[in-house]
Amino acid sequence: MKRTLFTLTLVFMASLLQAQSNYKKDSTQLKAIYNEALLNGKSYDWLDHLSNEIGGRLSGSLNAEKAVKYTKAELESLGLDKVWLQPVMVPKWTRGQKEYAYIETGPGQTSTTDICALGGSVPTPVSGIKAQLIEVTSLDQLATLGRDKIEGKIVFYNRPMQADLVNTFAAYGGCVDQRYAGAMEAAKYGAVAVVVRSMNLRSDDLPHTGSMTYGDTPANQRIPACAISTNGADYLSSALKILPSLYFYFKQSCRTFDDVLSHNVVGEITGSQYPNKYMVVGGHLDSWDLGDGSHDDGAGVVQSMEVLRLFKEIGYQPKHSIRVVLFMNEENGLRGGNKYAEEARLKNEKHVFALESDAGGFTPRGFSFDLDDENFKQVESWKPLFKPYLIHYFERGGSGADIGPLKEDGMVLAGLRPDSQRYFDHHHAANDTFDAVNKRELELGGASMASLVYLMDTYGTKTEMTVIKN
Amino acid sequence: MKRTLFTLTLVFMASLLQAQSNYKKDSTQLKAIYNEALLNGKSYDWLDHLSNEIGGRLSGSLNAEKAVKYTKAELESLGLDKVWLQPVMVPKWTRGQKEYAYIETGPGQTSTTDICALGGSVPTPVSGIKAQLIEVTSLDQLATLGRDKIEGKIVFYNRPMQADLVNTFAAYGGCVDQRYAGAMEAAKYGAVAVVVRSMNLRSDDLPHTGSMTYGDTPANQRIPACAISTNGADYLSSALKILPSLYFYFKQSCRTFDDVLSHNVVGEITGSQYPNKYMVVGGHLDSWDLGDGSHDDGAGVVQSMEVLRLFKEIGYQPKHSIRVVLFMNEENGLRGGNKYAEEARLKNEKHVFALESDAGGFTPRGFSFDLDDENFKQVESWKPLFKPYLIHYFERGGSGADIGPLKEDGMVLAGLRPDSQRYFDHHHAANDTFDAVNKRELELGGASMASLVYLMDTYGTKTEMTVIKN
Repeated sequence: MKRTLFTLTLVFMASLLQAQSNYKKDSTQLKAIYNEALLNGKSYDWLDHLSNEIGGRLSGSLNAEKAVKYTKAELESLGLDKVWLQPVMVPKWTRGQKEYAYIETGPGQTSTTDICALGGSVPTPVSGIKAQLIEVTSLDQLATLGRDKIEGKIVFYNRPMQADLVNTFAAYGGCVDQRYAGAMEAAKYGAVAVVVRSMNLRSDDLPHTGSMTYGDTPANQRIPACAISTNGADYLSSALKILPSLYFYFKQSCRTFDDVLSHNVVGEITGSQYPNKYMVVGGHLDSWDLGDGSHDDGAGVVQSMEVLRLFKEIGYQPKHSIRVVLFMNEENGLRGGNKYAEEARLKNEKHVFALESDAGGFTPRGFSFDLDDENFKQVESWKPLFKPYLIHYFERGGSGADIGPLKEDGMVLAGLRPDSQRYFDHHHAANDTFDAVNKRELELGGASMASLVYLMDTYGTKTEMTVIKN
Repeated sequence: MKRTLFTLTLVFMASLLQAQSNYKKDSTQLKAIYNEALLNGKSYDWLDHLSNEIGGRLSGSLNAEKAVKYTKAELESLGLDKVWLQPVMVPKWTRGQKEYAYIETGPGQTSTTDICALGGSVPTPVSGIKAQLIEVTSLDQLATLGRDKIEGKIVFYNRPMQADLVNTFAAYGGCVDQRYAGAMEAAKYGAVAVVVRSMNLRSDDLPHTGSMTYGDTPANQRIPACAISTNGADYLSSALKILPSLYFYFKQSCRTFDDVLSHNVVGEITGSQYPNKYMVVGGHLDSWDLGDGSHDDGAGVVQSMEVLRLFKEIGYQPKHSIRVVLFMNEENGLRGGNKYAEEARLKNEKHVFALESDAGGFTPRGFSFDLDDENFKQVESWKPLFKPYLIHYFERGGSGADIGPLKEDGMVLAGLRPDSQRYFDHHHAANDTFDAVNKRELELGGASMASLVYLMDTYGTKTEMTVIKN
């Protein structure tokens, strides 16, 4: 009995000492990662090139192909074990000439307003569309109004993002159905077009684009859709209160072409212990075309590249194979994310962890996780290691659109969660530009991602460790 | 025995229920505060006026007096119990004409560089100063070099802020001795002037001003001091490596006048239960003159005003007297902070809590506290209430310069701690302007401050509660 107790005590002491020694080693590694990122980080220079030398990178565009070439070459310069392109067919939609719109309150009495075509919209006739408006704040309202009130009109969706939500992504999620499904739904009631209030919490003159769907609406029943700036929407709404019969005119020449060949860019450090188990870190290489896509998602691209650079630079040799994947076509199709997951399944590549950065390059606050209880417990146990870097947010939630298709039972998915207050000021608009990104904030994000990948690689997911033990 | 146990259980249950009911009530109040701030906040409009209608507000300037008048009038419109001005004599230093500097690498071979006079510096002679440079990275280095190497030269202080410190205020603290004491120390070795690398983590062309001291250096031995931009400092340093004998020329016409009368602005909601116990919330009304002082400290001013507006608006009647104090002359003298504390002592006004916002209008992360263990325990117990607002930082540390003089045993001091990554990009420079402030980030700061004051008012500091019990 005494001996058993003695043995148990010894085992307990040993495990305590092990935990202490692990903590010390891990905190030294995290310090090395953050220091290298803040003192010699490459992500900001890479972003400078993507944003200022290349610019907006809509799927199927010349710029998107330039970005593929550039990031592949940069990854090759890092001394990774492999770098390759993964072919994927992507949609090609072009904006055409700058859109034009005005509000007409009487013969010859017009005032222009700022709009942009929604991504995937059909064009207006060359001469534009002019019609009266019906303002609504939800898709449901269409049924209440009925065909009588809607037919022949332009539906103006004007439900604003909810400012009292601290998480601005929740505010976005509460509004974006207007943009995504607004045209499809309005067409059912005979609307001739839709104008959607920009998904922006700020009052300004910038229209914000973004993806939309026509579902299975036949081609000849598809109606054009545009976004209006928040200032424009407020002006239009107040004008409609005074003069409900006013006319809205807009003209856009956007166009959808046949799908074209593009690529995901992939780089790998092959694992020393589990070369056939993969951990992915990624962002999307394509962006909308109005700005240069610095926050969405240039930041995620260069932070993901930086994770692998940091490992090489501090001399960390991962046990698992760590891949950076720069996904093509997140914005209007998700073809890259789907393609990567599809090939992984075809090749029977076992993915155990994936981390995405696609929420802007602002100061990182933590991560949201898609995982089971056991894995969440492990992840939560790492919080103290992140405290010196003010990384405090470890919550369950979505991870990212591009890694979503990889999800399988027991796998851990995570998304970097930066401060979200400014994100929708820039999202999909002309001011999503390099000057809106702060170097240190960007670097802290990359370092936080590298730290999480380091820990996940070192200790493995709980799922794989259970499998290995049994 | 059984009865005692039963009674104890009852007491325990009752206190549990009380705690639950308090938590529910407090979280409802915090929600009301944050909602009002995000939906109907006034701070951003106030800041717009302070920044864009008034502008930079250096102590003793016309703009500073405009700001006193404006904020007093705005506080009066809030329906507080009292609003008044507290007279205080302040230094008056003016920058004069735009400064001018160049680097001369040979006869007629000059390149201009961006500088600004440090606050409180003496001017150069009208014709400027031209001399060779000696570059150093610390004050200590002066003694090592000795008078031989320094006499007749301009000392160029070029120790950069340490980029690997996540807390940028720590990086600032590690450098600012060069600006504050650089001229005083260099004069002891016969230097003719000093040029100081701007306290900025970013590479750009903006010189950052800030306060400096001559200590008890006799007037005729005071040498002029200016700041050079980080890009300018790097260029100068690399040029010196090639040509150590190059000349630096600069000219500035700044001037110190006699002290002038100015004011702290004070507003009060008188307490319902402890009218003679005071809780202060404040920021400083003066600012440097290069920008419009939006972050430093227009943000703190309007957030402090907002705290009292929020209380009025949600119908919260505080138990203690809550004062907003807009301090004059934090930047170059701290006369307002000292004056307020001095009068509080003269009038025997018992201050139990003070909270300052003077670290920028960025997303709030939490608070740093100057308090004893008992009070810190209480403050930490409030963390869960703040979690929905992503307020996570509750650490011991400094509070703020203006409330520091109020400190007495048992009193609780606190400082709002916003995200600090971008702060020194703007601090004391021409780009500390309104456009660098995000409305929501500013509003979240004011709501966080109001929430802390609400809790402190509701439960009292531990110190006063102990006194009341005894």
